[in-house]
Amino acid sequence: MENSYDLVVIGSGPAGQKGAICAAKLRKKVAIVDRGQRLGGVSLHTGTIPSKTLREAILYLSGFRQRSFYGSDYVLQEIISMPDLSRRVTKVREHELEVVRNQLRRNGVTVLEGSARFTGPNALSVETNEGSRTIKAENVLIACGTRPARHPDIPCDGKCIFDSDQLIALDVEMPRSAIVVGAGVIGLEYASMLTALNIKTTVVDQRPTLLDFVDREIIDALTYHMRVRKTIFRLGEQVKSVSVDAGRVVARLESDKTLSADALFYTVGRQANTDQLDLPAAGLKADARGRVAVDHQFRTAVPHIFAAGDTIGFPALASTSMEQGRRAALAMFGRSQDAQELPLPYGIYTIPEISMVGRTEQELTAGKVRYEVGIARYEELAKSQILGDHSGLLKLVFDPDSLKLLGVHCIGERAAEIVHIGQAVLAFGGTIGYFRDAVFNYPTMAEAFKVAALDGFNKLA
Amino acid sequence: MENSYDLVVIGSGPAGQKGAICAAKLRKKVAIVDRGQRLGGVSLHTGTIPSKTLREAILYLSGFRQRSFYGSDYVLQEIISMPDLSRRVTKVREHELEVVRNQLRRNGVTVLEGSARFTGPNALSVETNEGSRTIKAENVLIACGTRPARHPDIPCDGKCIFDSDQLIALDVEMPRSAIVVGAGVIGLEYASMLTALNIKTTVVDQRPTLLDFVDREIIDALTYHMRVRKTIFRLGEQVKSVSVDAGRVVARLESDKTLSADALFYTVGRQANTDQLDLPAAGLKADARGRVAVDHQFRTAVPHIFAAGDTIGFPALASTSMEQGRRAALAMFGRSQDAQELPLPYGIYTIPEISMVGRTEQELTAGKVRYEVGIARYEELAKSQILGDHSGLLKLVFDPDSLKLLGVHCIGERAAEIVHIGQAVLAFGGTIGYFRDAVFNYPTMAEAFKVAALDGFNKLA
Repeated sequence: MENSYDLVVIGSGPAGQKGAICAAKLRKKVAIVDRGQRLGGVSLHTGTIPSKTLREAILYLSGFRQRSFYGSDYVLQEIISMPDLSRRVTKVREHELEVVRNQLRRNGVTVLEGSARFTGPNALSVETNEGSRTIKAENVLIACGTRPARHPDIPCDGKCIFDSDQLIALDVEMPRSAIVVGAGVIGLEYASMLTALNIKTTVVDQRPTLLDFVDREIIDALTYHMRVRKTIFRLGEQVKSVSVDAGRVVARLESDKTLSADALFYTVGRQANTDQLDLPAAGLKADARGRVAVDHQFRTAVPHIFAAGDTIGFPALASTSMEQGRRAALAMFGRSQDAQELPLPYGIYTIPEISMVGRTEQELTAGKVRYEVGIARYEELAKSQILGDHSGLLKLVFDPDSLKLLGVHCIGERAAEIVHIGQAVLAFGGTIGYFRDAVFNYPTMAEAFKVAALDGFNKLA
Repeated sequence: MENSYDLVVIGSGPAGQKGAICAAKLRKKVAIVDRGQRLGGVSLHTGTIPSKTLREAILYLSGFRQRSFYGSDYVLQEIISMPDLSRRVTKVREHELEVVRNQLRRNGVTVLEGSARFTGPNALSVETNEGSRTIKAENVLIACGTRPARHPDIPCDGKCIFDSDQLIALDVEMPRSAIVVGAGVIGLEYASMLTALNIKTTVVDQRPTLLDFVDREIIDALTYHMRVRKTIFRLGEQVKSVSVDAGRVVARLESDKTLSADALFYTVGRQANTDQLDLPAAGLKADARGRVAVDHQFRTAVPHIFAAGDTIGFPALASTSMEQGRRAALAMFGRSQDAQELPLPYGIYTIPEISMVGRTEQELTAGKVRYEVGIARYEELAKSQILGDHSGLLKLVFDPDSLKLLGVHCIGERAAEIVHIGQAVLAFGGTIGYFRDAVFNYPTMAEAFKVAALDGFNKLA
């Protein structure tokens, strides 16, 4: 049947793409549905790709990395305008869109431009420019992503008050001061960029601590470095109301403090787009934030329907979403044995960058597991001198008896790259002896593993 | 005895430092001898550190990485002077010197400033500013490094004709054209930098091929990219004579070609400094290039004398030298069991950067070992778009039956960092299935491993 597929994927972000391609490689007939102009999903249009490109452009144009050579006031370009930044974003986005389109085409995945909606457990209606059509699906992968959650008292106008999707389309003048409400991954990434641009930034979050899944020493380092660059943190504080007065945003906190700035960025939470899918027609339901519950194979309560990516919640990173999509496809076609469970890394693109894999000190302490740590400070590394980053650190957490690696925690230049060295050793059950004995290219940031391992051995001596 | 040591190390470069510190950690009494102002060795003063700092400064100041965003003619600074570059070199060098000094002090290693010379197998005379003193050594580690080899017909004047040590002290005007004689690692690294500065560069080498230990596909990519940036390669060609005429250097080749340029860099070979040590007094001898022969534990023909680093020849990289120094110290104190043999990575800081670990295609072909490859082109990676490097590639070489990883070959941005991910998997005997199943932070260059592994699996299908 022409309109019948082994798999229909709803959403073409990282989870959807990889799920579709995996199924296509298993010689299944696959269609992927996304709204016109939205191929690639949030990741490509307003999320990961634009924000990471923006970050790199800011680091370059602000001369940030060069300040250790040319002084802390060094800027490459005195006035950085949004067009300077967005030129790069557009270029990278266009290229990536081409990559996604090619990959889908090469693998014979049918791309349907339109909005999908369940009309039964195995049937979907797709609303396109040319009207609506019905397609049949043996299996479905829901990977429809999320949109910024709204706050009733914080009106995002795209002029002074922005949600995380509007931020990237910013074509206004660069603000001189900003308030970021929400200190999750997105909020902290944006606050870092604002700070690197010398924009006076205040971060507000109702939670008393930042990113609880990250090692405390790393978070302490992050807040230290952001504070050095004049970020103010208002944690354990709630926003009561926000208003705009003569081009200034004024935020009143429950504690009766008043903050004012040129702009406010609201980055608290995201809402899954499942409300547009008529889930009940498929026999499914979502929670208040639109999330669909899945098992360890990413299967929903309806056995032939799977969900992956931001739609299912934490960690909602492009990296994990891709692998979830692939695993869902393997599971639905009985090929789960083709994928082993491996420790998950996290990459957070703050400034400095953070990455981790394995267990944190606080987790081990709570679980009463004995451990020791070995630390390399970037200051001691030649490469970090050469790159101009003196602020990073790499921490190895290990079992003091067996020497087995338990966790890797890193902050600083290239953290998200080098953490994968530790991830491999962790996956193979290796010890810190590996890092002591391995030769590392010199100068590299990777060398930090050797320095940290030697520090760890010193602690045992 | 005050002047008696468990270990005397001759030379304070990477091999000497790490050997001394390793022995000190074993609670041995250690002295390290180096000439005044030379602490840190060639690596710190004219080798690895300055050249890699120079490279990074050139990449930044030339706007090299930004050209994919702002056009191929983009330069950050129209005229780059040597002081612009050397300011950074001085800063990094000073910091690194401090690091070395601190590490030695912290570990209780005695630093003797002077020139060492054997007066017997266990005795050395050290010539200092205050006269000479004799010291006794239970063990000796020769890590005296190398200096540029001289060619009788190529007079390095430090004005138009430079050896690799003079290059870094360059305080003349930047040449507009250059000839690099010698296409080894040093020659190619310098030729890359000259090319990045838009200096018209010709590379001459008598060998018909470049860097035989590196995978051919990687070398082909390197020469391709250097040629795109106007480098001319004259391989299989010998220099007959060199003269300077009105500020122009003229090199005549055996093939009767004549090359002329503003400057010539002579980077053919290095000569070990062992001729200054009176080796025969210790019962040792060196070969024509001053190299001392050692066994797999870095032990010379005289059992209590070891040698490591550039002094023993290939690969003469700071990274391997450090580990050689450490292993020599472990061996001399009967602790060799504390170090496992692991696959050696190589990092070559050309532009683009090259790194490898494990076996090459040509090695496996020669050995009649069946293999398959999986390739990731940087073009397909989001991170590489963000960084502006479209030219790299990562190749995994693996056994098509067991899927075991055999080699990793990489060219492009961050190659020397990410190769260590492959090195760990290689060391633990892992397969390319690991890369397929692991989650990689997105966007990173590390993601190339996943892309390459999936490509490898496609080839098997």
